[in-house]
Order: sequence, then structure tokens, then C-alpha cells
Amino acid sequence: MTYCIGIEVENGLVLASDSRTNAGVDHVSTYSKMHRISTAADRSFTVLSAGNLATTQAVVRQLKRDIENGTGINLDSVASLAEAAEYLGDLSVAEQQKHAEQKDPAFDPSASFILAGQIRGRRHQVFMIYPEGNYIRPPRRKPYLQIGDLKYGKPILDRIVVPDLSLENAARCALVSMDSTMRSNVSVGPPIELLICAADSFDGGQYLRLNEDDDYLAELREAWHERLREAFDRLPELPVARPQIRLIDAQGD
Amino acid sequence: MTYCIGIEVENGLVLASDSRTNAGVDHVSTYSKMHRISTAADRSFTVLSAGNLATTQAVVRQLKRDIENGTGINLDSVASLAEAAEYLGDLSVAEQQKHAEQKDPAFDPSASFILAGQIRGRRHQVFMIYPEGNYIRPPRRKPYLQIGDLKYGKPILDRIVVPDLSLENAARCALVSMDSTMRSNVSVGPPIELLICAADSFDGGQYLRLNEDDDYLAELREAWHERLREAFDRLPELPVARPQIRLIDAQGD
Repeated sequence: MTYCIGIEVENGLVLASDSRTNAGVDHVSTYSKMHRISTAADRSFTVLSAGNLATTQAVVRQLKRDIENGTGINLDSVASLAEAAEYLGDLSVAEQQKHAEQKDPAFDPSASFILAGQIRGRRHQVFMIYPEGNYIRPPRRKPYLQIGDLKYGKPILDRIVVPDLSLENAARCALVSMDSTMRSNVSVGPPIELLICAADSFDGGQYLRLNEDDDYLAELREAWHERLREAFDRLPELPVARPQIRLIDAQGD
Repeated sequence: MTYCIGIEVENGLVLASDSRTNAGVDHVSTYSKMHRISTAADRSFTVLSAGNLATTQAVVRQLKRDIENGTGINLDSVASLAEAAEYLGDLSVAEQQKHAEQKDPAFDPSASFILAGQIRGRRHQVFMIYPEGNYIRPPRRKPYLQIGDLKYGKPILDRIVVPDLSLENAARCALVSMDSTMRSNVSVGPPIELLICAADSFDGGQYLRLNEDDDYLAELREAWHERLREAFDRLPELPVARPQIRLIDAQGD
């Protein structure tokens, strides 16, 4: 499995991805799922990928090749992030359709993507592209998107990510969400890649790659654990429960 | 969907369940999934249920009927929680097999259960019974079990629940886990039922039923949210990220 997050706060973008791929428990590898695409200086695009590895590699290769060839639509020619999402979705669907004749029911060429970036003069944005090629923006009040095994890491994002969250806290929240997922699902694993792109800055952003034994990751885990334990001790006390009460049996029998 | 939790700490048991059932988004109902079974005074059993509502109701009815009839194995006659789990699993499988001829691929009579309780002189325990009738105990160091839509609420249990956690904190942790799940999945919903049973106490435990608009639930939510926000502000600062770094493209192209 995979877990990738794209957060779009007012001050910029935060992206995070794990690096584990597996085709069965005895075929586990490490691949980057964060692809920063080299483009013209007035724009920046980063793609996070989940799903079939052959499909995602083919799509990323094609994105780069189209820029090099400069023909038709490519990431240097698109006028908006939405146009880029549409184009990426088309590439993904075209790649998957190459395998439409494949009969093995266990074979699944589908892939999902998060596309994040900015074109100078326009707002930084994040999109999620479904395997079917269609795409969405995050909800305004919870400005984040996820792909892969997203449930474990969702509650902390739901509680913390708001539009005016600082980039620093958005990044730490992405790491906590990633760490929660890694603890609960062994098929999501390090190194964790983290990219922080301030709005209107086209300098490539701040990139961190955190290995399993990374000092900062260990420190963050321990501090988070400590803070949570403290938080529980300070939660309001349970109301005085009524002893001996009989449960009302809603089934009525 | 459903979400139920059974926690077994040294001082006793904490059980929590939501109350939403649905057969499609236009057929949503409220049913208790927490079934306290009336038994002899030397024992207490509580069953949490997930899955097909007809199956779970039939199994709970049969549990009660077998005690009334006093014939064969029943919850008053079993000598251990494990024996009770085996018996409950057998009832569940027998009930599901009544529908083995059913051809509709969308029809699924399967159900899962958490069985928690104590027989005087023995340790309080929690078991989870799979749809296939087999059953497990929780891991020693993370003494909790879940049924239903369990991923959203799992990370907080993983981080907090340890064998020597207080009953009070175990109960608050169950509520936070439940609240996280309800926020992320509309098919899990209030009222939340919570039962706290101190070890070696056969008084029926302390029972709380929290509606959506419950004052304590609102207070808990707000306090938890506040504590989490504070926790983020106090997490260690990100290491100085290297600007302008190029991502290493693991695909090597």
C-alpha cells in the first residue's frame, strides 16, 4: 500500500509520502512516490502517486517526456493547475487502457495521483486525480487530500488542518498522520518524504527525507506520545455514571 | 457500518459502541449494538455486535433463550470466557448457514462480535469472534479489540491503550476513538453507549448513553481539540530543511 497527503493552507503547500511498495508480503521494495517535475521557472509541480507502480512510473515518465518534446499539452504549456490535472488524468487513463485486454482478475493497473503546485500569478493548489481520470479539489474548510490507505491518518488531519494553519504545523501534522498510518499498517513504510512549498516561491521548496531511524522522527514520535498522554489526563472527567442501570435493548426482546 | 471497541485493562473492561445501522443511505436506523446478557450472579457478559442485523439479533436472542431453557451449553453453564466465545461463534455460524442457499451476491449474512465479561474467580477478558466462528484475544501489550469500521479510530488506541491504563482514561480513549470515527464516517453515529466494568465487580458496571447533543460529549470534543492544537504547538521544530534540493527520483529517469 501507499499513503500520501497533500495539504493546501493559505501560506503554501505541504506534501508527504511514504516509500513502501509491495506485490505480496515477500516482495516489498522502496520507491519514492514523490515526483518533482522540472518545469519552466514560472511554475512548480509535484506529483504524489499511489496504485500500480508500472502505471505511475509510466505516467511520470510521460509527463517529463512531453515537457522535453514540447509538443501538444504539457506541464510547461498548461495555463492552470486544473488543466494540468485534466492532462495527468488523461495520461493515466491512456496508460491503464493499454491493459484493458488483460483477463487476470487479480491484475489491477489503476493508479491515483495528487498534483500540487503553482503557476506564477495564480494561487497554489492541490488536486487529486482518480483512477478514472477525473479529479477534485479539497473542501474549503478542510484543505487536504489523501491517496492510498487513508483512514488511519484521516482523523488527525480532520481535527487540525484548517486554511490558516501555519506551514510548520501543517508539516508536523502530515508527519503525525503518516506516523499513525505506519504504526497501524506495515505496508506503509519509511523513508517518509516531506516537501514544504511556501506560496509564491518557486525555489523548489524545503525537502526532508526521514528514514526509519531518523532522530527527528524519533523525537517527534516521543513528543507526540507524551503530549497525547498529557492530553488524556486533562480531559474532562466522565459524568457520574449510573451504576446498576439496565441496558435498554433496542431489539425489544 | 458500525464501530465497537472492547478494552481490557488490568482494572477492568471498557466497552463502547455506536448505534447506527444502514441498509443504504436512505434506510438508516438506530439500534443498540451493546447487549448485556442477564446471567447468574457469579458472572457477567456483554456482547457487542457488527454486521448483518438479522444475524446479530438472532444470535443475541438465542443466547438469552439458551439461558432461559437451561439446556446444553449456555452462558450460565460455560466455565470460561473462551468457552463462551466458542459457543457464540457456533451460534453465529449456524445462523449464517441458514442462508447458504441465498444466491444474491449482494446479500451478506456475516456478523462479528466482541464478547467481554468475567466469571467469578477468573480474570475478566475480552474476545473477538469472527464471522467464521473462530475467535481471538487481544495482544498482551495492546489490550483492545475492535469490530466494524476500525481504521479511523485505531491510531489513538494504539498510542494510548496499555495494560495499566486507568479505567477512566480507557473510557475517555474509547470515546475519543469513537468520536474520531464518527467525524470521518457518517455511517457510524450516535448515541454512543459506554460500559465500564471494574474487575471482580458483578454489579452491572457503569453505563452511559451519549446522544449527539450530549453536554459531556461536546465538552470532551472541544477539550480534545484544544489539547491537540496545543500539542502541535509544542512539538519539536522541524529540522532546518535544505532548500533547493532536488528529489532523488527512485525510478532513475
